[in-house]
Amino acid sequence: MIELDEEQTAARRWFEGLRDGICAEFESIEREAGSDAAFEYLPWDRTEDDGSPGGGGVRGLMKGRVFEKVGVNVSTVGGAFTGDFAKTIHGAGEDPRFFATGISLVAHMANPHVPAVHMNTRFLVTTKRWFGGGADLNPPIPVEADTADFHAAMRAACDAHPVADYDRYRQWAEDYFYIPHREVHRGVGGIFYDHLEGGFDETFAFTRAVGEAFLDIFPRIVRRRMDTPFDEADRMRQLEYRGRYAEFNLVYDRGTSFGLKTGGNVDAILMSLPPLAAWN
Amino acid sequence: MIELDEEQTAARRWFEGLRDGICAEFESIEREAGSDAAFEYLPWDRTEDDGSPGGGGVRGLMKGRVFEKVGVNVSTVGGAFTGDFAKTIHGAGEDPRFFATGISLVAHMANPHVPAVHMNTRFLVTTKRWFGGGADLNPPIPVEADTADFHAAMRAACDAHPVADYDRYRQWAEDYFYIPHREVHRGVGGIFYDHLEGGFDETFAFTRAVGEAFLDIFPRIVRRRMDTPFDEADRMRQLEYRGRYAEFNLVYDRGTSFGLKTGGNVDAILMSLPPLAAWN
Repeated sequence: MIELDEEQTAARRWFEGLRDGICAEFESIEREAGSDAAFEYLPWDRTEDDGSPGGGGVRGLMKGRVFEKVGVNVSTVGGAFTGDFAKTIHGAGEDPRFFATGISLVAHMANPHVPAVHMNTRFLVTTKRWFGGGADLNPPIPVEADTADFHAAMRAACDAHPVADYDRYRQWAEDYFYIPHREVHRGVGGIFYDHLEGGFDETFAFTRAVGEAFLDIFPRIVRRRMDTPFDEADRMRQLEYRGRYAEFNLVYDRGTSFGLKTGGNVDAILMSLPPLAAWN
Repeated sequence: MIELDEEQTAARRWFEGLRDGICAEFESIEREAGSDAAFEYLPWDRTEDDGSPGGGGVRGLMKGRVFEKVGVNVSTVGGAFTGDFAKTIHGAGEDPRFFATGISLVAHMANPHVPAVHMNTRFLVTTKRWFGGGADLNPPIPVEADTADFHAAMRAACDAHPVADYDRYRQWAEDYFYIPHREVHRGVGGIFYDHLEGGFDETFAFTRAVGEAFLDIFPRIVRRRMDTPFDEADRMRQLEYRGRYAEFNLVYDRGTSFGLKTGGNVDAILMSLPPLAAWN
């Protein structure tokens, strides 16, 4: 295994603990819907180009009655970026060594009235150290109250932490989760932040708040909508929405296309793709 | 409309006639399956950045009992490539003006035992003039006889025309229709060729032969397999196969990503995507 310093260990532990909390809560929701679905965990290792250990992660996947497909990946990797790629990474231009630990989650829901969701937070170390991440809501059939509550939860997380700037992070998400060829946004937004430097304690505290806000608000939205009746037209709308989601992830998402083109763990990278999608 | 010279007119007419022949044949197959599905045609115009007419095309789409979704696009466009893109196109480095006419077809079939298929041929004019295109078979559940017959048809088209080289074109398709992140080919191959210069008559004759070979062999394979019984597992295998197909087109296909990123007709470009696809 790669060696971790105190901050890296603290961040990794938080991401793993957050994963445990989220998975337990999602499984509780399945119980409430009368299903015994549970996450299955698949550990994977990363190897550096020279064959040395480069860390790894655990992919958690559940297919349930409420969560048609939800993936949660926690990874803790390190090594050295190869070639010109180092130049594109904050603080790695002179020294290509890096460390990254983070959690990444995508949930595609069975009921078209329950929004799909994406959440990801991470701690990066090069010659710089920073946090990044965010969460955004992706309802096939948007409900204003859900959108408002989701944004309010993210705003509250930001407002409680002077290192964060809600308006900027909301705009960042709006700019990022956009599908130019269709001139539509992927979802109804949320927050997105990156290169959040400054004191470790302060930036870490904010990143924890994002995870906690997500764990508070998303299950509430799910429980609120999971029993809403829907028909074939709603389902078709959901499947077409998911087609757009797949388009965004495969064509524009930086993490996805970088991962695919540089030999990352395919199953972990493409965990985000919908269980079923339609193009008419 | 843009003005066409004699060769451009001849090529455009052929592509339109081939489209008519293919659509009539595919509709006949629907009749044989007891369906009255027919192609619907949607004309679209292309406008140059400066607002002048840039040609256009017609997108044909049919959703039937045998053909779950088949799109045939014929386009005839012209103008000038903008910016650095001209430098990437054969013969357009010094003079960015271009003309292109072609046919592009993708069929996703209802029965998982019937192969999906892709066929595209085109005539390009910059300071150079050339034909390009090909056809490749994409069976969710490959049948050796179908693969062999499809390749034999393409080989026969090449062998009858000294300007063509079957072995090279087959290898070209094998290299091109590959999904590196999964280390699998998209389908079972076919032929791919580009920048086929030389006499217009000879290269055009070969391009017509590719279209004729496709129109002969593909309907025969469809009729042979369309009544094969299939179960839920076969259907799931087909939907997952289509997920890979969508990945290839959205991540790697040069035409798709160029079209999307430069404001082409989205419906025509994404016509190739499957009606329904799964990621498990």
